[in-house]
Amino acid sequence: MLGGEGHSDPWVKLVDYALVTLITINCIFSILESVENLSIVHGHIFHAFDHFSVAVFSIEYVLRVWTAVEINQPVYKHPLWGRLRYLFTAMAIVDLVAILPFYLGFFVDVDLRAMRVLRLLRVFKLTRYSQAMGIMVDVLRQEARSISAMLFVFVVILIFMASLMYMLEHPRQPEVFSDIPSAMWWAVVTMTTLGYGDMVPSTALGRVVGGCTAVIGVGVIALPAGVLASGFSERLRRRRQEYLETVDKVVVQDGPLRPREKRLLEATRIALGLSPEEAQSILHYSATGVQLHCPHCGEVIHRDPP
Amino acid sequence: MLGGEGHSDPWVKLVDYALVTLITINCIFSILESVENLSIVHGHIFHAFDHFSVAVFSIEYVLRVWTAVEINQPVYKHPLWGRLRYLFTAMAIVDLVAILPFYLGFFVDVDLRAMRVLRLLRVFKLTRYSQAMGIMVDVLRQEARSISAMLFVFVVILIFMASLMYMLEHPRQPEVFSDIPSAMWWAVVTMTTLGYGDMVPSTALGRVVGGCTAVIGVGVIALPAGVLASGFSERLRRRRQEYLETVDKVVVQDGPLRPREKRLLEATRIALGLSPEEAQSILHYSATGVQLHCPHCGEVIHRDPP
Amino acid sequence: MLGGEGHSDPWVKLVDYALVTLITINCIFSILESVENLSIVHGHIFHAFDHFSVAVFSIEYVLRVWTAVEINQPVYKHPLWGRLRYLFTAMAIVDLVAILPFYLGFFVDVDLRAMRVLRLLRVFKLTRYSQAMGIMVDVLRQEARSISAMLFVFVVILIFMASLMYMLEHPRQPEVFSDIPSAMWWAVVTMTTLGYGDMVPSTALGRVVGGCTAVIGVGVIALPAGVLASGFSERLRRRRQEYLETVDKVVVQDGPLRPREKRLLEATRIALGLSPEEAQSILHYSATGVQLHCPHCGEVIHRDPP
Amino acid sequence: MLGGEGHSDPWVKLVDYALVTLITINCIFSILESVENLSIVHGHIFHAFDHFSVAVFSIEYVLRVWTAVEINQPVYKHPLWGRLRYLFTAMAIVDLVAILPFYLGFFVDVDLRAMRVLRLLRVFKLTRYSQAMGIMVDVLRQEARSISAMLFVFVVILIFMASLMYMLEHPRQPEVFSDIPSAMWWAVVTMTTLGYGDMVPSTALGRVVGGCTAVIGVGVIALPAGVLASGFSERLRRRRQEYLETVDKVVVQDGPLRPREKRLLEATRIALGLSPEEAQSILHYSATGVQLHCPHCGEVIHRDPP
Repeated sequence: MLGGEGHSDPWVKLVDYALVTLITINCIFSILESVENLSIVHGHIFHAFDHFSVAVFSIEYVLRVWTAVEINQPVYKHPLWGRLRYLFTAMAIVDLVAILPFYLGFFVDVDLRAMRVLRLLRVFKLTRYSQAMGIMVDVLRQEARSISAMLFVFVVILIFMASLMYMLEHPRQPEVFSDIPSAMWWAVVTMTTLGYGDMVPSTALGRVVGGCTAVIGVGVIALPAGVLASGFSERLRRRRQEYLETVDKVVVQDGPLRPREKRLLEATRIALGLSPEEAQSILHYSATGVQLHCPHCGEVIHRDPP
Repeated sequence: MLGGEGHSDPWVKLVDYALVTLITINCIFSILESVENLSIVHGHIFHAFDHFSVAVFSIEYVLRVWTAVEINQPVYKHPLWGRLRYLFTAMAIVDLVAILPFYLGFFVDVDLRAMRVLRLLRVFKLTRYSQAMGIMVDVLRQEARSISAMLFVFVVILIFMASLMYMLEHPRQPEVFSDIPSAMWWAVVTMTTLGYGDMVPSTALGRVVGGCTAVIGVGVIALPAGVLASGFSERLRRRRQEYLETVDKVVVQDGPLRPREKRLLEATRIALGLSPEEAQSILHYSATGVQLHCPHCGEVIHRDPP
Repeated sequence: MLGGEGHSDPWVKLVDYALVTLITINCIFSILESVENLSIVHGHIFHAFDHFSVAVFSIEYVLRVWTAVEINQPVYKHPLWGRLRYLFTAMAIVDLVAILPFYLGFFVDVDLRAMRVLRLLRVFKLTRYSQAMGIMVDVLRQEARSISAMLFVFVVILIFMASLMYMLEHPRQPEVFSDIPSAMWWAVVTMTTLGYGDMVPSTALGRVVGGCTAVIGVGVIALPAGVLASGFSERLRRRRQEYLETVDKVVVQDGPLRPREKRLLEATRIALGLSPEEAQSILHYSATGVQLHCPHCGEVIHRDPP
Repeated sequence: MLGGEGHSDPWVKLVDYALVTLITINCIFSILESVENLSIVHGHIFHAFDHFSVAVFSIEYVLRVWTAVEINQPVYKHPLWGRLRYLFTAMAIVDLVAILPFYLGFFVDVDLRAMRVLRLLRVFKLTRYSQAMGIMVDVLRQEARSISAMLFVFVVILIFMASLMYMLEHPRQPEVFSDIPSAMWWAVVTMTTLGYGDMVPSTALGRVVGGCTAVIGVGVIALPAGVLASGFSERLRRRRQEYLETVDKVVVQDGPLRPREKRLLEATRIALGLSPEEAQSILHYSATGVQLHCPHCGEVIHRDPP
């Protein structure tokens, strides 16, 4: 299959790197094309490169769908339904979105600016090659309840503070705090401590409420950020722990690593997406002849002999 | 009783969802009504919907008070005193505030803008259906001493920095840093790293003090945010731990779950407000036949046989 | 001795509360006096209240110094040297600074604005009654090396980014980025994510460097904030642990608390500055007949019988 | 060797302090020289001091390279290759960069402003004397994969939000959101919660997207900051743990410390860069006759006798 991520076959790696480079250049060109001067002078280059990229991405898409049956999962095994099922995976949709606007342009009259933004969605094609994005999505899914609950609290406080500020500042600055939606924009800008300065309370009471909003905002915003950060670091820890458990199963404790053990460990390392350095440091911990691992932080606990 | 939150009866659920939808639409309409254009064009719709909501909320309020005696707590058991006692719970007051301004409007001449803000207090009715708000209030109550102590330090530093900045910047910008209350507004905006830009020091010394204020502010603000975040995550952990303990009590270690065990666990899960996925993952940890649980993080500790 | 903080004698408490109230009103009046309108209209009230406060604070100061020998520490025992030594403690200096400017005003011609700021130093008199400030100073002292090392890194990066930005933006905005000190002000405002908006890079390269400065700033600023937060929470934990150890020493395991035990625990609670609720929850943990406490987090570890 | 950092020889210490002072004054002068007024009035002092510093730094550089063979590492042992190898260490390059621009000025016509910035690179010479910088670089190197992965996610979201905002705001504010690179500047300023206010969305949809960008930005930025902070504190912990292990090896458990033990501990303390207070507190924990240390947090675990 095309682009077997993290695969060790040098040809697959080459194709991977070529695609990553192509997508990157593509995004940079899409960004630059929006600059008027560059667009006028180098428009034809941007145009030609876009056609070339769409061609490559189309071939890539067709090949990916075609070879979907070779993915090592029973769901995709069936020649027809497997491929159809693959069509609706997140990555396949991203791949489709990367090329569809171009073909759509032949039939429908798409707005140029919307077209450019749709083209920049190609940047998400890069996420296939990034494990951080995957872990992040996993963490978000797992902590979805907590995060959404906190965002709900955020929104409730936001609405309350915005309506309070509207009441206090509207008489003094009727142009700026013209309605509650405007005041909500002020509240978002304040609670995230952005502070653009386009809307600033000027009455004494408004400033008191504004200060409270900022202080409360810091507290409310710190919660989901903290939950995300700890969820993320726990994920990384678990990956290391899984590797450690494989090491314990695979490695016979006495003597150096045998070729078969090395192959197995390397396969596990790639599957878990650990860097060679990380794997080495885990091995080092494990190789000191320890028996007991803390199941939470994945580190070795030395024990006195009984 | 109406709106038994987290209840499994489908009718209760339906009423819950209907009320949540009504409150949400209500808040959106109150926000939109403040926009002048919309208010002129669609004013009668907003008006009609408000009347309808007040009617529903009034019925809800009366029913809630009436059925208060059926809450499973001895305090509310008495036909009269129980209901009176219920009237003074936080949720009942929120429910009352949601409808009172409307009826008050018949007798007193309430300011339109104040009315709108009071109407937006209805957003707090939603907190009945959110466990995050409850946990947050719990955490705030438990850490109240720490948080208020830190806020005190924040205020002391704020006053000191504001008066220092007033002394340094007043001669140069007498209009902007006109008095110490203004300088305190600057200090709040700086210490929370909001930085609106409406008041900016321009003297060399003022900028040095401003820079120090920002750096100190980051440190001082990080403390309560950190305390809140760790308090919140400990709360979530404890809930999981409680579920785990119930599992240990309820489940007979050998064999799969029996129907009675399943019912008990489900009831516990709902009472603690855990998602089915969270409960499943806790069960998984527990089902591996472990004996020792860490009472702090709620996770299982594998031990070698003695 | 006057103002034995946390003391249980009701008269001492009354004096404490009176002083706290006086200091608070004093600060509020000093702040309000800087507002021109209020100063003109109510100037005489502010004036009279200031005279009254100085009188009270002077008496307080003299009494505190006089009774210094009764502090339960051998250093202050000596009738003369003990009192002189007390004069140079941080709290005594704060007390002196609160009254000195007033008396100095008779001899020297002090600037009015400087006077006002010096008067606001009285806010630090409040720190005597706050344990948070004390813990914070302790944490700062203990982590001084780490924090100052991080601030050093902050300053090095600040200087480098400022000089880079000066080179890039000076030709385009010679008025704004006029010299490196100005650019350093920009760098502080950017690295703390304040973002006043008074100095904004406008060249393409300047914006790239500006973006990097902000991202690096978030990382560099997060470090000392994190160290402070964890140091602070460890302090709180240790206090609880100390209480727990006293409980273990004092309480005879069987039966409810005896009057003598209760008195001892209450004294310990006050000495450590714990709230009654905190103490209760610690007692609850301890009262379940456990033997082993984790010395790090202060919580009880349940163990299987051997 | 010159400047043996953390060495206990008083002469070496004196040279170290002298060099630190010289570098600091140098940086301050370079910063002040950029201020036009000062540059005109005191130009000759700045000039003379710069010549003097370059002379000292040149001698320092030559001596450092010459004595490189005396560093206790086999790589630098060879009289020629060892010195050449030393030339390419990070610190040697920093030392070279500090003097090279001056000598280059004789041959090439360097831009004055660029010269000044290059001169300010001397501030990095200070990092030789700071352990925090070293630990920070270590942490960055170790967490490089995580951090770069998160920065990648940051960039992907940045590009997407920028292009979306460009599409929404360009028609309304064609001057401000003129192209996608400009919109990316807005996105950086928003996601880091800088909020300069030079580019602010004004359409309703633009504000909704802007608010989401800020909230997402807080979450995305919190991750690498959290990883850095925890990595840093783990580093500090490990240093303490290493000291503790040395203590356990060196100290014979019964009786006070002997002179030889004291010398050994002092040497370890200096090598690990711990403050005397930190070392003392670690010793205190260890001296209570404990046998088992938690290998993760470096603290002592009391155990019941078996």
